[in-house]
Amino acid sequence: MGKLRFEISMSLDGFVAGQDQSLENPLGVGGMQLHQWVFRLAAWRAPHGLEGGEIDASTAVIEEAGAGIGATIMGRNMFGGGSGPWGDEPWTGWWGDDPPFHMPVFVLTHHPRGPVALAGGTTFTFVTDGIEAALDQARLAASGQDVALAGGADVAQQYLAAGLIDEMDIHLVPVLLGQGARLFDNLKDSKVGLEQVHAVEAPGVTHLKYRVIR
Amino acid sequence: MGKLRFEISMSLDGFVAGQDQSLENPLGVGGMQLHQWVFRLAAWRAPHGLEGGEIDASTAVIEEAGAGIGATIMGRNMFGGGSGPWGDEPWTGWWGDDPPFHMPVFVLTHHPRGPVALAGGTTFTFVTDGIEAALDQARLAASGQDVALAGGADVAQQYLAAGLIDEMDIHLVPVLLGQGARLFDNLKDSKVGLEQVHAVEAPGVTHLKYRVIR
Repeated sequence: MGKLRFEISMSLDGFVAGQDQSLENPLGVGGMQLHQWVFRLAAWRAPHGLEGGEIDASTAVIEEAGAGIGATIMGRNMFGGGSGPWGDEPWTGWWGDDPPFHMPVFVLTHHPRGPVALAGGTTFTFVTDGIEAALDQARLAASGQDVALAGGADVAQQYLAAGLIDEMDIHLVPVLLGQGARLFDNLKDSKVGLEQVHAVEAPGVTHLKYRVIR
Repeated sequence: MGKLRFEISMSLDGFVAGQDQSLENPLGVGGMQLHQWVFRLAAWRAPHGLEGGEIDASTAVIEEAGAGIGATIMGRNMFGGGSGPWGDEPWTGWWGDDPPFHMPVFVLTHHPRGPVALAGGTTFTFVTDGIEAALDQARLAASGQDVALAGGADVAQQYLAAGLIDEMDIHLVPVLLGQGARLFDNLKDSKVGLEQVHAVEAPGVTHLKYRVIR
């Protein structure tokens, strides 16, 4: 059975988004700083249809994080923000007509909606019966490959607290946001044990990989 | 003028001590886990008067952190816990008759007290007029060498918010404490810019060095 892997960029003070997240500014105040390290890299630009970019110590980390993934899980806000029912709206999320996933994506939501198939092999399936059901469906779709948990923080916290995450890649950025959405929050009563797998220094970021111990 | 350098062990979720810190358990619940990586090392044991111990990738980091330091600043709780006035008590803190500092140590407190000179060259001077006064005194005593800020978290936050720290070594430990004393807290209105100097992977810990940008 494939692993459930999670990767996210986090500030040194533990935030994965700034304050005042909104439809217009989904990363919140200052949140874009968390991702500057990746935008300039060829390994990020290519799957987003952009040419050029740099190669550095982050490149191998990005390639490894993207390899062997057969399905993705994400929260409703990461799919497309907002909280209303779907209605007849044709909204297909932040990701445009040709999303960078190229695989089955399972979106956790309270609002039922039929699946959406887009160009490049990305399908969005909307799951309303909880994180374990979404993981079951994603594992089935992944056909033995791993499942990626794309975020956001609240969904990651739920999976972490439930002991369902196998590996975490934290891209730790030298920024202090001061406030916003903390990754490691609401975990008070869960005993999550971690083993450090590796740490990779790269320009403007340190990549930390942990294995969850059960 | 020497730099103000700060080093501390922090959990992946940002805590430098567990909950329920007390005189009996100054590191709080689970807080001892933050320091397991260091106790077994020869580089920690030797200055504490203990023989033996291991050498690993942390060794050079510890040696570098301890080199070129001419004076130390710490908070009242790190000196010896409690909050009452000194009175006639002979209490010389947690550190015993031969503390591992071997240099002038400046203790931030609200309670005036005369200096205490102990074996091995450690003197404790009690400073009641604030963090900047303590830094001035420590810099004078350090005679051009750097000043170490030993903690705890509240004192570090004050120096960080005031823009007085030059370098930070964060020893990031693969532990989730869930609650306790957060290092990066109460910084909402201060704009602290950081530059990543290096990251060193070692057994059970990742050493992160940052320079504060002004």
